[in-house]
Amino acid sequence: MDHRPLRIGALLFEGLDQIDFTGPYEVLAKLSDSTFTTYGPVAGPVADTTGLVLRADAVLEEAPQLDVLLVPGGPGQQKLMDDDRVLAWLRSQAAGAGCVFSVCTGALLLGAAGLLRGVRATTHWAALHLLPYFGADATDERVVFDGRLVSAGGVTAGIDGALRVAELLRGTEEAQTIQLLLQYAPEPPFDCGTPATAPQHIVDAALRPIGDLTAARLVTTRRFADRERAAGSRRTDTGSA
Amino acid sequence: MDHRPLRIGALLFEGLDQIDFTGPYEVLAKLSDSTFTTYGPVAGPVADTTGLVLRADAVLEEAPQLDVLLVPGGPGQQKLMDDDRVLAWLRSQAAGAGCVFSVCTGALLLGAAGLLRGVRATTHWAALHLLPYFGADATDERVVFDGRLVSAGGVTAGIDGALRVAELLRGTEEAQTIQLLLQYAPEPPFDCGTPATAPQHIVDAALRPIGDLTAARLVTTRRFADRERAAGSRRTDTGSA
Repeated sequence: MDHRPLRIGALLFEGLDQIDFTGPYEVLAKLSDSTFTTYGPVAGPVADTTGLVLRADAVLEEAPQLDVLLVPGGPGQQKLMDDDRVLAWLRSQAAGAGCVFSVCTGALLLGAAGLLRGVRATTHWAALHLLPYFGADATDERVVFDGRLVSAGGVTAGIDGALRVAELLRGTEEAQTIQLLLQYAPEPPFDCGTPATAPQHIVDAALRPIGDLTAARLVTTRRFADRERAAGSRRTDTGSA
Repeated sequence: MDHRPLRIGALLFEGLDQIDFTGPYEVLAKLSDSTFTTYGPVAGPVADTTGLVLRADAVLEEAPQLDVLLVPGGPGQQKLMDDDRVLAWLRSQAAGAGCVFSVCTGALLLGAAGLLRGVRATTHWAALHLLPYFGADATDERVVFDGRLVSAGGVTAGIDGALRVAELLRGTEEAQTIQLLLQYAPEPPFDCGTPATAPQHIVDAALRPIGDLTAARLVTTRRFADRERAAGSRRTDTGSA
C-alpha cells in the first residue's frame, strides 16, 4: 500500500445533493495522512438542492493537482453541463488524479467533460439511461470501478463507493476501521432502495417529483451527443479532404 | 396519518460529526409539508469535528416549538455536557416536540439534559456503556423507539433512524419513496460495521483514536450521575427534615 500523502478534493456547486458529498466526505476525510479541500466556481457558501449551506474552501483554479477528485451530483449539475470552465477543470484534474470518483448524477458532469467515453460507469437509477449518450457503458451496479474512474449509484451509494475507494487508497484494514467507526451496518427499513425491488406505485411516486428534471437532463445529454457527432463528421470531412 | 405542517429542527454545535446531522437531514428535509431549520448556540458557520463547515440558521432562542428535534453527536458534544443554556433548550423543546431524535453520541446530550431517565435508548457502540449513568436502559439496537424519543446508534445509523421517523410522521409510502429516491440499498464492502462482527484487531484499531475521548466522556457522564445522586440525597434529607 502506497502511503504518500493524499490530496483529496471535491467539486461543490449550487444545487448539489449534499449527501452525495457529505457521505463520501465522512469516509475519505478519515483517511490517514490526507487533506480534504472543497472547490467551487466561487469560494464561500454553496446551497444544496434543499437549501443546506456548505462551503467551498477555494475556487477551482486554486486547486493543486488532486490525488482523489470527488464529483457529487444533484439537480444543480444541469447548470454546469455547458460550463466550459468547470468542464475544463474536471478534464485537467482527471488527467493527473489517481482516482476520479463520481457519486449519483455527478457522473453526468464527467460525461459532459468527455471523461466517460468507453468507460463502464453508473449513476442514479433514474439517470442511468443517459450514460450511453456520453459513450459510457452504463452499468447497473452500486459501485463501478473502471481504471482510475470510480462511479457510485444514487445518493447513498457514495458511502459504499467511498469505503471501496478507501480500501484502494489505504488498504483493507484502514477501510474496515473506518467502517466500524461509522458503525456502518445498515438496516434499511424497507426493501425498496432500487426500482427492481420497490413496488411499482413507489417507483411511480419517486419518478413524479423528478420527471421534469429527468426530461431536462435528457435534453442536455442529447445536445452533448449531437455535438460529438458533429465534431466527428467534421473530423471525417477534414480527413477526406 | 396526520398531515399538518411539520417544523423540523436540528441542534448544530462545534465539533459535531457532520453525517450524524446530514444523513437524517437528507431524509427528513424531503418530508412533505415540512420545514427544516438548524439552530446553534451562535448563528452562522459551525465546523464539524473534521473541519467541514455547516451553518446554523438561527440561535437556539429563535426556535419556535419544534415538532421534530434532531440531536446529532460527535466529539464536540463534550463541551455541551455542562452547558446550562443548551441543556435547558433541549429540555424545553423536548417537552413539546412530537419526536426527539438523537443520533450517535447526541444521546449523551439528551442524557445530560435529564431526558433519558427510565428511557430505552442507544448511541455509538463505543459509548453505549455510558447510557446507564443517565438512568437510561442502554439498548444495543440500531434504532430504538421509546415513546416520543427515538435514538439511533453510531453515525450512519441516523439514516436508518430517519427513515423510520419519516414513516412515523408521514406513513410508509412516503418513507419508501424517499428511500428509493436516495437509492438506499446499501452494500457495505465489509461485515464489520459493529464490534460484534468486526475482527478484534479492527475493533482495537477503531478504539485507539477515540480512547481519550471515551475516557473524557466517562468523566462527564459520571459527574452527571454524582450530581443526580447528591440531588437525590438532598431531596431525601429535606424529606426527612
